[in-house]
Amino acid sequence: MDFQVQMEKDLEMVEQALKAYLPKEEGQQKVIMEAANYSVNAGGKRLRPIFILETYRLFGGEDFSYVMPFMAAMEMIHTYSLVHDDLPAMDDDDYRRGRKTTHVVFGEAIGVLAGDALLNYAFETALKFHDLVDEKLAKGRIDEKEAYRQTRMGNRALQILASKAGIYGMIGGQVVDVENTDKPLSKEQLDFIYRLKTSALIEASMMIGACMAGADNDSISSVEKIARNIGMAFQIQDDILDVTSTEEVLGKSVLSDEKNHKTTYVTLKGLEQSRQAVKDLSVEAVRILHTLPIESAFIENLINMLVHRMN
Amino acid sequence: MDFQVQMEKDLEMVEQALKAYLPKEEGQQKVIMEAANYSVNAGGKRLRPIFILETYRLFGGEDFSYVMPFMAAMEMIHTYSLVHDDLPAMDDDDYRRGRKTTHVVFGEAIGVLAGDALLNYAFETALKFHDLVDEKLAKGRIDEKEAYRQTRMGNRALQILASKAGIYGMIGGQVVDVENTDKPLSKEQLDFIYRLKTSALIEASMMIGACMAGADNDSISSVEKIARNIGMAFQIQDDILDVTSTEEVLGKSVLSDEKNHKTTYVTLKGLEQSRQAVKDLSVEAVRILHTLPIESAFIENLINMLVHRMN
Repeated sequence: MDFQVQMEKDLEMVEQALKAYLPKEEGQQKVIMEAANYSVNAGGKRLRPIFILETYRLFGGEDFSYVMPFMAAMEMIHTYSLVHDDLPAMDDDDYRRGRKTTHVVFGEAIGVLAGDALLNYAFETALKFHDLVDEKLAKGRIDEKEAYRQTRMGNRALQILASKAGIYGMIGGQVVDVENTDKPLSKEQLDFIYRLKTSALIEASMMIGACMAGADNDSISSVEKIARNIGMAFQIQDDILDVTSTEEVLGKSVLSDEKNHKTTYVTLKGLEQSRQAVKDLSVEAVRILHTLPIESAFIENLINMLVHRMN
Repeated sequence: MDFQVQMEKDLEMVEQALKAYLPKEEGQQKVIMEAANYSVNAGGKRLRPIFILETYRLFGGEDFSYVMPFMAAMEMIHTYSLVHDDLPAMDDDDYRRGRKTTHVVFGEAIGVLAGDALLNYAFETALKFHDLVDEKLAKGRIDEKEAYRQTRMGNRALQILASKAGIYGMIGGQVVDVENTDKPLSKEQLDFIYRLKTSALIEASMMIGACMAGADNDSISSVEKIARNIGMAFQIQDDILDVTSTEEVLGKSVLSDEKNHKTTYVTLKGLEQSRQAVKDLSVEAVRILHTLPIESAFIENLINMLVHRMN
């Protein structure tokens, strides 16, 4: 299938998953559902759920309802991290993707709570996977042995989600980033931050997709490496766009790294070497992708798209 | 066994669980482990993990290692809610339990991230329950059928944890509380806030204890009701202590509700009726406790202790 057509279908499935799993706006606490939904529906590339979906497909996964709770949960976790990152105590950003940030619209207290709500709801959502298995078992569509196998797969996926999002993953990267604001960073520190802050959730996405399709440990470990390279390339491309793009194209302010005195790949290595790094990392991701027993033109195209993206 | 002796043993087991499951302070992101541990180790009654432990015991649970991940996770979730609640954007408290609050010691950005870290790590920790089951299965100490049964119990406990901590539980209560700051509240609104903000985690604790011991649905639903009454009584007692206690005894500032223009049971109903409400709620909790097929002198004593507590 044509890459663009497939991409649109995937995006549709992501929106379907979000619609199915985002909370209804009701009850006395309605405003928190509104704030959570406002944040998630602010747009974005939906990159992480697409990686779950496509890696699941790559390893032969067929029942897409099984990955939908994880797709929704992953986007919720990504979104909560942005909501908290934008808070006055953190980056203090008023705009993201051309829209006012959550705390600007709903106030700072609800900004904090909306992030908490999305993080918590992500686990609530991912845990709903078990209800799908229980339902299949109750209807006799699978036997106990198969239900147990699927339940264990789901639990492994949940563990991957939790650990890659936490202090040894995304939050850990945020922390080192925050702690070193206004300090010059070495390349090693920058690599550490990018690997945790950006790669970790992409690693989790591809690993969850593979895991839920029943891939073996070697394959899960291969996609983790692929994702690590993709995440690094993605983040360095971000650094490049911050100095080469315009506010209109990017949907957020440019030259923000310079303004915030941030060490980036560009400040550390210059534009040329940064571009080369993006290229090297994506070539390496594709190389590992080719060692897998299965072909994936889509993921290869996706990697190339991310490398050449303008926003 | 004597109540005080048992209580001390339980508290020891809670500390053991926390020690086993709190993150090691290492790595480039070490400060976040320090902040998380600082927050959890600030003391506190450890009420929620004790309710897990004692309800587990009540329903015949014997392998306490099985509830330890949940005990630690519950205290992490309770603690994260306090860390975020103390933030300048929320209640802006500099002291808690006689110690400086997390954001005062580590800065506001790390305050936000420490709360996030604890919430995320709570799920990481609770999910480790599955490793215990897998280990027993691998060692041949249980068969596949039993392993699946235990795994499902654990998943149900995880679902209870997630839902009671989230927007339909604790966070929901926080939201309605925050949204109504400086507004007069009706008794119905106050009950809603107390039920979600305070009772929800106590409900979760007792339900998880019962669930992990293999209690039936009726019993789980009974302990949910018991816990709801306990939580309400506990929160109203908090309101009472805020106007009747001293800073020394309470370990935090008194008359804070008046200072913050908060509607409480005391402002709404007066001291006498508030005291009566605490009594009625605890009597009701004990009444339901007595309908259970098993006796629990300890939980009954615990309820009475909470009602008569001075801090």
